[in-house]
Amino acid sequence: MSKHSNQHMTTDEFRKQGKKVIDWIADYYDQIEQYPVLSQVKPGEIRSNLPESAPLKGREYGDILSDMDKMMPGITHWQSPNFHAFFPCATSGPAILGDLISTGLGIQGMIWATSPACTEVETHVLDWLVDMMDLPKKFKSTASGGGVLQDTASSSSLVALIAARERTSHGDTNLNGSNRQLTVYTSQQAHSSIEKAVKIAGMGKNNLRLVNVDSTFAMDPKHLKELIENDLAQGLIPTFVCATVGTTSSTAMDPLKEIGNICTEYGIWLHVDAAMAGPAALCPEFRFINDGLNFADSYTFNPHKWMLTNFDCSVFYVANRKVLIDSLSILPEYLKNKDTDSKTVIDYRDWGIPLGRRFRALKLWHVINYYGVEGLQVFIRGHVENTQKLKSWIEADERFEIVAPVPLNLICFRHQNGNEFNENLVNSLNESGKIYLTHTKLNGQYIIRFSVGQAGTSLDHLKKSWDYILETVKEMEKD
Amino acid sequence: MSKHSNQHMTTDEFRKQGKKVIDWIADYYDQIEQYPVLSQVKPGEIRSNLPESAPLKGREYGDILSDMDKMMPGITHWQSPNFHAFFPCATSGPAILGDLISTGLGIQGMIWATSPACTEVETHVLDWLVDMMDLPKKFKSTASGGGVLQDTASSSSLVALIAARERTSHGDTNLNGSNRQLTVYTSQQAHSSIEKAVKIAGMGKNNLRLVNVDSTFAMDPKHLKELIENDLAQGLIPTFVCATVGTTSSTAMDPLKEIGNICTEYGIWLHVDAAMAGPAALCPEFRFINDGLNFADSYTFNPHKWMLTNFDCSVFYVANRKVLIDSLSILPEYLKNKDTDSKTVIDYRDWGIPLGRRFRALKLWHVINYYGVEGLQVFIRGHVENTQKLKSWIEADERFEIVAPVPLNLICFRHQNGNEFNENLVNSLNESGKIYLTHTKLNGQYIIRFSVGQAGTSLDHLKKSWDYILETVKEMEKD
Repeated sequence: MSKHSNQHMTTDEFRKQGKKVIDWIADYYDQIEQYPVLSQVKPGEIRSNLPESAPLKGREYGDILSDMDKMMPGITHWQSPNFHAFFPCATSGPAILGDLISTGLGIQGMIWATSPACTEVETHVLDWLVDMMDLPKKFKSTASGGGVLQDTASSSSLVALIAARERTSHGDTNLNGSNRQLTVYTSQQAHSSIEKAVKIAGMGKNNLRLVNVDSTFAMDPKHLKELIENDLAQGLIPTFVCATVGTTSSTAMDPLKEIGNICTEYGIWLHVDAAMAGPAALCPEFRFINDGLNFADSYTFNPHKWMLTNFDCSVFYVANRKVLIDSLSILPEYLKNKDTDSKTVIDYRDWGIPLGRRFRALKLWHVINYYGVEGLQVFIRGHVENTQKLKSWIEADERFEIVAPVPLNLICFRHQNGNEFNENLVNSLNESGKIYLTHTKLNGQYIIRFSVGQAGTSLDHLKKSWDYILETVKEMEKD
Repeated sequence: MSKHSNQHMTTDEFRKQGKKVIDWIADYYDQIEQYPVLSQVKPGEIRSNLPESAPLKGREYGDILSDMDKMMPGITHWQSPNFHAFFPCATSGPAILGDLISTGLGIQGMIWATSPACTEVETHVLDWLVDMMDLPKKFKSTASGGGVLQDTASSSSLVALIAARERTSHGDTNLNGSNRQLTVYTSQQAHSSIEKAVKIAGMGKNNLRLVNVDSTFAMDPKHLKELIENDLAQGLIPTFVCATVGTTSSTAMDPLKEIGNICTEYGIWLHVDAAMAGPAALCPEFRFINDGLNFADSYTFNPHKWMLTNFDCSVFYVANRKVLIDSLSILPEYLKNKDTDSKTVIDYRDWGIPLGRRFRALKLWHVINYYGVEGLQVFIRGHVENTQKLKSWIEADERFEIVAPVPLNLICFRHQNGNEFNENLVNSLNESGKIYLTHTKLNGQYIIRFSVGQAGTSLDHLKKSWDYILETVKEMEKD
């Protein structure tokens, strides 16, 4: 029986096709190592295989599922155990199912009343995480602060910056042209999202100070203090410091205590970005990353990076929720309701940029309950242990140099043969499809980054990758 | 066999549990009309049933799925055919499955190289939509512009405002304190996200002008011109006008041609927000909503509202992509790659706020291919026809007054008995659980909004709802 274009999918058809899709995903994971990790297509190649215009008549679902065959060559396989580029973006079975339920329910959590469970489960699991990771209690909803899920750390940091800007300018940004004088500080190694946030917030790139780093690529607090003093001397208003726990280039750890003391002294908002590294605090032995976090006004880390929860899921904590809400709250008539009026509920629309909100907490609920605290610890600990083993192999080969500390799960290293050789090595490895690595520059040198964090990555995978790197180097040394 | 807390879900288990979840969702849709549309729980009720701390040991997946029983009382059923509050947020079977595949793949489309298919399918379907809806060709990627998916119209409008701000200040926002002088215009009936965007962009609420509306609640272009002239006379710089096609309160249609002419005359960026109403242009007979759209510098509408694509999915078009990219682009070393260098690819990270991006285009691909253009037209047309029938029933009852034009699928009406009666009526209907309606205020009066747009809403549902409204009114008139 042919489908009519004007019909919705029946629940019977949904059951049938949905189960096919579940199998399709399971098959994908069973075969994931057979794909080249980095997509090998040329620009425009995927598009050239798609029909020029949309179909007038609806198509059978089975045919639409088959369209994936045209798209798969254009997929870079982030979930492959041989994906070691950028930072991990690890997902898991329970996360996928939690998100599927959220998609199926199709609800909106913009305000409490539009689905109380969406708000309350979110508040609840974010309070859980404060305990699970031994974060400052002020971040709990039962204290002065609270947590909220954002899409990405870029949005979390932007929201933190807006709150700091409004706190400093007393909600009067612009009225006196005061934002012209507000200055922002972050290290030269901080994520690009900070510069982008400064731009979006209209604070001007000329008011962004990039603080020097020390030999471990961590922020130099003395230089921070100098920059602040210098700005004060010029009549500017130091407003926001973003410290990073685990920089993108090399997982450098900015010294939160020293930075925090400076922020306290000058009354500056301290935001801490631990986008990737944050989940390490699930393990007591890695809680050094929390040292000094008690100074933070806001904190962000991404369960979608290294905590088995599919993208997008960025946790954002604030120590004083009132400041955040005052910065972002707008209440039009069509959103007024008795629960909001009662002030007994949280309306998360005032905690971020979008009005509409998915039931994102459900996937986090699934992950935490499926693995349990101990299961998550095993996962994090395993990655760190395996990374340290890989580090020892690299160290044992005197042609290679490890160029930055390896506190957790990222190794920055280079072959002695110079920038061009290392760049060619990375390109050659990526073109092989066997592994995907990306690079950075540290002290002007081209550096290879090896990031460990996908759900399926075992020690055996790392061993094979290292062997393959050595094999490729051997070939290149011959030339 | 008991699950060990330190194990990942095997693909076999994923197949088994995933199919249960598919059935759970299908069962939900089969029974959706049995739930009260608006959740009836009290603040804190859902949370009080959740364990105080996270489990140490992992739990069986079946038990986690059963947790949904605790959450369901806290769900407001947006997909119910009796949901007529706010605006629709309609999903569909193919949309859910498209999003499931995206979640399963777990890829990141931040730059072209990190999954070329994610970028190219997105560009492709957004070009399709320009043709499907007969939008200005300049919005195509093959012309000077291009489309991109954002999470919500709030983000789309924010991004438009940032681009306009940077265009006017020549990328120098703040350097000269120039953003202090940039003014923004939108109607008194515009969505709250515009005021929020002005706040986020640091442009100052004192620089936001709310333009008067006419008797149909549409922007008065004469007043717009007056405000602009007045600001120019004071040395301010008119920068951005947001016109709305289908306001949130009453689907009022701002006159784009007149507004567009004014924007052209003064060199002001024109952004058009058609968040809900946009998909009406799929039907030739409703393309009056596109009149004057050729003047727009940017345009947004949400397939997650009235185009059967689950949240979040907001389409954003820009006429000159270079201006947008220049406003948001930051290129750190760790994101550099040969494809970006070649300038032959789109890196969507420069088209919005977040760096990371889901493969959102997949659900749009699924919806367009499953329904076909004609199937989507049948869906939109049906809702408009049914709304007009409901309108005729309301008009036929002289106790009721329709207070705003009904161009598409939203009716604003009131009972003659005054504000308190209407407010009590809405509360009473919502507490019954049979239907969910929200309100607005127009000319100081409390107005009932009846929005039609969920996938399963038929004429029969509207008839029953209307009968129930009359029944409730009868009870209330007795008191």
